Amino acid sequence: MTIPTESDVINALSRVMDPELGRNLVELQMIRNIKITSSGAVSFMIALTIPGCPLREKISADAKAAVLALPGVKNVTVNLGAMTEEERKAVLGKNQSFSPKLNEFNQVNQVIAVMSGKGGVGKSSVTALLAASLACKGKRVGVLDADITGPSIPRMFGLAPGGVRGSQDGMLPGITARGIKVISVNLLLPEEDMAVIWRGPMISGTIQQFWNQTLWGQLDTLLVDLPPGTSDASLTVLQSLPVNGVLLVTTPQGLASMVVRKAVSMLQQMKVPILGVVENMSYYICPDTGKKHAIFGESHASEIAEAAGVKVWARLPINPQITALCDAGKVEEADLPEIEEIVKLLG
Amino acid sequence: MTIPTESDVINALSRVMDPELGRNLVELQMIRNIKITSSGAVSFMIALTIPGCPLREKISADAKAAVLALPGVKNVTVNLGAMTEEERKAVLGKNQSFSPKLNEFNQVNQVIAVMSGKGGVGKSSVTALLAASLACKGKRVGVLDADITGPSIPRMFGLAPGGVRGSQDGMLPGITARGIKVISVNLLLPEEDMAVIWRGPMISGTIQQFWNQTLWGQLDTLLVDLPPGTSDASLTVLQSLPVNGVLLVTTPQGLASMVVRKAVSMLQQMKVPILGVVENMSYYICPDTGKKHAIFGESHASEIAEAAGVKVWARLPINPQITALCDAGKVEEADLPEIEEIVKLLG
Repeated sequence: MTIPTESDVINALSRVMDPELGRNLVELQMIRNIKITSSGAVSFMIALTIPGCPLREKISADAKAAVLALPGVKNVTVNLGAMTEEERKAVLGKNQSFSPKLNEFNQVNQVIAVMSGKGGVGKSSVTALLAASLACKGKRVGVLDADITGPSIPRMFGLAPGGVRGSQDGMLPGITARGIKVISVNLLLPEEDMAVIWRGPMISGTIQQFWNQTLWGQLDTLLVDLPPGTSDASLTVLQSLPVNGVLLVTTPQGLASMVVRKAVSMLQQMKVPILGVVENMSYYICPDTGKKHAIFGESHASEIAEAAGVKVWARLPINPQITALCDAGKVEEADLPEIEEIVKLLG
Repeated sequence: MTIPTESDVINALSRVMDPELGRNLVELQMIRNIKITSSGAVSFMIALTIPGCPLREKISADAKAAVLALPGVKNVTVNLGAMTEEERKAVLGKNQSFSPKLNEFNQVNQVIAVMSGKGGVGKSSVTALLAASLACKGKRVGVLDADITGPSIPRMFGLAPGGVRGSQDGMLPGITARGIKVISVNLLLPEEDMAVIWRGPMISGTIQQFWNQTLWGQLDTLLVDLPPGTSDASLTVLQSLPVNGVLLVTTPQGLASMVVRKAVSMLQQMKVPILGVVENMSYYICPDTGKKHAIFGESHASEIAEAAGVKVWARLPINPQITALCDAGKVEEADLPEIEEIVKLLG
């Protein structure tokens, strides 16, 4: 009769995730005291990170099922325990040790993330317009494009793919007409429409490299353009980078506002300060009549601002000229007075 | 002197990822033949999935560093080998075995994914409008909302959070006024603006459960609303669900079109058929003058269609009434004649 070895059991358990931490039980050092009898009875202890973990039943059932599936296993006993405070710190500390240090040549005074939760609300245009305005005022500005699968920043600044060179000390960012330093997946790809088909860990690893392996030099402000969603990319930026504050971008649509409130809820859970709300595509001024049209409905920005405990700092119009400048790589030539309100917010 | 045990070494290696497969080396059963001497010398073999794996140096260096970091380890020797064809199949087969079978009570005639790559172009409204039109023609329709962190579908149909009940056989989907069956994270949450802060594996697992643990019953068409990006959610849908074809949604902006072409490149690499391109927010008709305004610039949809080898099937206007209906949960009352063109495409 085949009896599994301890390695087999560990192997099986390394496929069971702690759903909250998003890491497997073996990696989290939760598995203790594996015993295997010659009759195929397996027992082990799962040391939970918190004794009253609400997911204990699920974790235990998943672990049991994974080991029961091994050939030769007749029955499985799972004992639930908890880590000591010290062990817990060691594991969490290890997670934190993934958090990368900035390259020694760099000095970044503040990191501001531009987030929405919802796609297509204009995070990237707001980021680019803000960067341009700051650069115009003589600030040293960088933009980290954390949207790995849908990067828009290089195109807006007219930076071509394949434009990043590296040295032993790190990657040299792309530099725009006004001297803004930019790093983005689309600067590394040979063609801008190549797909980046990566799962979460690669996305997270790339963002960390953008942060600590780019030769940013001295920056007054690094703007981080986040992708939609509250998954890997956003989590990595908020956990691994020293984000000073987040600017929320929304549009008037009720649906967009609902998804942006999810971002607010994430930021509050992670205790990251929210600086303010910007409403994009607020209205359209008909060039023939000069009349304002609320194309995407009445504003819901104040609801978001209220949930976040901040103010609505600007309402930006739908402006076909700015769309055209972004498409043409000339965002730095845009002139949108409403952006100045947001710049004040960044100090 | 402390000498690490085999479990310690496996533990350490379970934190090293194969960057391409996005899984750790232990989980992939790549670690063989661990030897630990009493003087703290550790050696092991890494069986690569392909002998000439381009990432072999990185994997080997990462594994070495992980083991060297263990207390008591003096030096580490990594031998590179390759899996046999049989082993490789077993590992890949195991990955594939995650691919879930449909619940035995279900029968789904066709699965159509609505994708864009870019956020905020109107994937969800197109999905909802299509579903409503199909239902109106007497088809049995389901909608699987694969946008886990930014789900819009329930709100558009007026389905309240907390509306999913389950039995031993699976989850009962939400049912709209016209009998469309809907499953979405926002039906499971107690509040619609709660954030779902999950990394990739949880996102993928949830999508698979939506597919195989929902009691869909008999469906003519299941529409899958994909989130932005070409990462976990899209990969899982395209790898695990029997997708018959993909409908691409874009907007006129050049920037959107560039990101949508990334989705085309992903679909071509994964050999999933593209059915056609729909351009949303193509123009706005000023209610005062009746004049068409190309608010988001001139169309780039034909470039995408050409890259994908298909036609542009519809150009949908910006229609504030439809936005309002979507916000109010009444998408089924919308009347947009252009949708009928797309319905034809689904057969």
